[in-house]
Amino acid sequence: MKAEILAVGTELLMGQIANTNAQYISSRLPEIGIGVYFHSVVGDNAERLKQIFKLALSRSEVIILTGGLGPTQDDITKETVSAVLGRRLVPDQASLDDIEDFFRKRGRKMTKNNLKQACLPEGCTIVRNSAGTAPGCIIEDSGKTIVLLPGPPSEMKPMFEETVMPYLAAKSDCRLESVYLRIFGIGESAVEDEIMDLIDGQTNPTIASYAKDGEVMIRITAMHPKDSTGTDIIRPVAHEIKRRLGDAVFSDDGSSLEEVAARLLMEKKMTVSFAESCTGGLLAARLTDIPGISAVFDRAAVTYSNRSKMEQLCVRKETLDRYGAVSEQTACEMALGIRNISGTDLGISVTGIAGPGGGTDKKPVGLVYTALAHRDGVTVKRLDLWGNRERIRNVTCLHVFDMIRRHLMVSGGM
Amino acid sequence: MKAEILAVGTELLMGQIANTNAQYISSRLPEIGIGVYFHSVVGDNAERLKQIFKLALSRSEVIILTGGLGPTQDDITKETVSAVLGRRLVPDQASLDDIEDFFRKRGRKMTKNNLKQACLPEGCTIVRNSAGTAPGCIIEDSGKTIVLLPGPPSEMKPMFEETVMPYLAAKSDCRLESVYLRIFGIGESAVEDEIMDLIDGQTNPTIASYAKDGEVMIRITAMHPKDSTGTDIIRPVAHEIKRRLGDAVFSDDGSSLEEVAARLLMEKKMTVSFAESCTGGLLAARLTDIPGISAVFDRAAVTYSNRSKMEQLCVRKETLDRYGAVSEQTACEMALGIRNISGTDLGISVTGIAGPGGGTDKKPVGLVYTALAHRDGVTVKRLDLWGNRERIRNVTCLHVFDMIRRHLMVSGGM
Repeated sequence: MKAEILAVGTELLMGQIANTNAQYISSRLPEIGIGVYFHSVVGDNAERLKQIFKLALSRSEVIILTGGLGPTQDDITKETVSAVLGRRLVPDQASLDDIEDFFRKRGRKMTKNNLKQACLPEGCTIVRNSAGTAPGCIIEDSGKTIVLLPGPPSEMKPMFEETVMPYLAAKSDCRLESVYLRIFGIGESAVEDEIMDLIDGQTNPTIASYAKDGEVMIRITAMHPKDSTGTDIIRPVAHEIKRRLGDAVFSDDGSSLEEVAARLLMEKKMTVSFAESCTGGLLAARLTDIPGISAVFDRAAVTYSNRSKMEQLCVRKETLDRYGAVSEQTACEMALGIRNISGTDLGISVTGIAGPGGGTDKKPVGLVYTALAHRDGVTVKRLDLWGNRERIRNVTCLHVFDMIRRHLMVSGGM
Repeated sequence: MKAEILAVGTELLMGQIANTNAQYISSRLPEIGIGVYFHSVVGDNAERLKQIFKLALSRSEVIILTGGLGPTQDDITKETVSAVLGRRLVPDQASLDDIEDFFRKRGRKMTKNNLKQACLPEGCTIVRNSAGTAPGCIIEDSGKTIVLLPGPPSEMKPMFEETVMPYLAAKSDCRLESVYLRIFGIGESAVEDEIMDLIDGQTNPTIASYAKDGEVMIRITAMHPKDSTGTDIIRPVAHEIKRRLGDAVFSDDGSSLEEVAARLLMEKKMTVSFAESCTGGLLAARLTDIPGISAVFDRAAVTYSNRSKMEQLCVRKETLDRYGAVSEQTACEMALGIRNISGTDLGISVTGIAGPGGGTDKKPVGLVYTALAHRDGVTVKRLDLWGNRERIRNVTCLHVFDMIRRHLMVSGGM
């Protein structure tokens, strides 16, 4: 089955938000054998929406529209889709009850413009919205399936998962299974060079690589019937790629580098603490994004000032004076300090120059030191990164999580 | 001038990445009077790309394509666009030199597949790429302007800024000016209810509102000739909206809540430190994303364990035993503790239950306490948030930055 996603909202065309709804839905549909062939975005304009919706009807079997179901005047998706399909909008009492309930629960007054949201195209299947006020709907029309969902991701996602995915899965005969090999430490063209013969030779599974700040991903995708699995098609190819790229492949189950590091920490019951300077808490924020991490993560000291490095981490004044805050020596003392103070198995530090200011000839923007203190001592690494502040901070985090991963793989822990 | 953006890449249709390039370009073009009317995404498939590119040629004057310029076999944008326009791809020596230089500087070997990137459509203007290997280009053809840029944002953005924006600005006669009023603490329908008469009455400027996790934004957009300004058109409307919504409007210059808080801290020379539990470093990470923040941000203690709350923040054991880690009392002691230890003007704490686990009937997921310790004492606030872990952590940060903002607005600082 061919699907496409049509997002409606001038805020997307003005660049105020990215079309993360299309990304989310696209990441889910292939699993139930529905390929996404197009994304489109139009503004809150009935004429252009009509045009692009008609085009979608002409080329896709499943059309998922997001956005424009809200209470305001420029929310026109239901109205436009209904007009093209020649259906009336009729009030739905259950939806109206849901909306009134939503406001009552939050102790807020329902404004009149919310009533519009309870009117839905006749003959549709209603998709209830437990996280917001706009219900969605599914319309079957002349062999096409048209799905309307609200724009806010926090509302769209549960509605898509609970109602739309099962609905569409029942209609589809085949499944696509994808495995993502994620790689850190090798560039994209070097990766492709290494596996070019595999890419050339394959039709099922298909193989593709792409680069994302500091990381490379290889996607292996197999098509298979609903009642079987793609695992046997994918496994030998994944195995061969992993053999060639070695331990640069850090995951094959979609896990991010921090998730892999977190899992290893939990498996090996190794506790960790951070001493962060230039990453400013980003390391801890990314690690604590993982539920349950409190079992191994004890604390972080975000020491931006020199004084806080001395007070919180016992970095010596002489070290800071002689070598500077961004140095191998300071990184080591920070890592040893946080390990010692927190009593965790591992203590990890980061100090560097994220820019845009603060760089010198000797210590340019992008120079970062990161150290790992463990039972047997401390390991320090110099990174020479490029890019803007955001990239330098993000890639630094990847290096740290990779350092944790490699340490735990090699040493088996302590 | 009407523009559209066409992104090429199966990784977009598979949902591996969001189309942030379209967002970025869309946010920039209106400033030079170019309206973006459509975004489209197609995979690495020549036939579908051809179709959608022809459609774009039929309806837009400026077509910006991103992605598919890389060294690999499935990079087909240049080839497809050239075929549709009937142009040959010809090698460009300067581009080849740039690519060789790129590898040499990084001490890496150039693989042969990189040569393809130095071939460009005949008669085009080349857009140099200083951050990567794929040059872009601009083609003028039968009254249409076609721009090809690489997919990685770190390469696309500087190329767009340095070459494409000035090129397109010279072609456009009018300008669009937008002001964004950002609002925290009122829901979208309540906001719209408040300003409905203004929205109804206006054509230039236009007014639109939209909601984004915990925040509402109102966009006011004026169209004006190249040689004048939109300020006079926007100012009275912005003024009236601000009058009605009061200090819930936290910015009118695009600044985020953390940027507003950071600016107030810097203006008033007020130093700050954080004691974070459930946000796990996210507060500090978001604040330190702002260059120059080291002038006012001293440190953060990410205290995940009870022990670290006692050791790093001097929270009393009795308090934790009696009231629990997630309580008004613990929040207060954390805030007072970090202020005392760091010697900053403000000490801010967060403790709560971000979920998915850890909630109870009395203390459900989403319960968060945040406290602000200042010269005259400590102010604590209870938040009852909903949504997933990510949303709860993010909205908590917004509340904290808003608390800083309101404190500094009212008290003038200390």
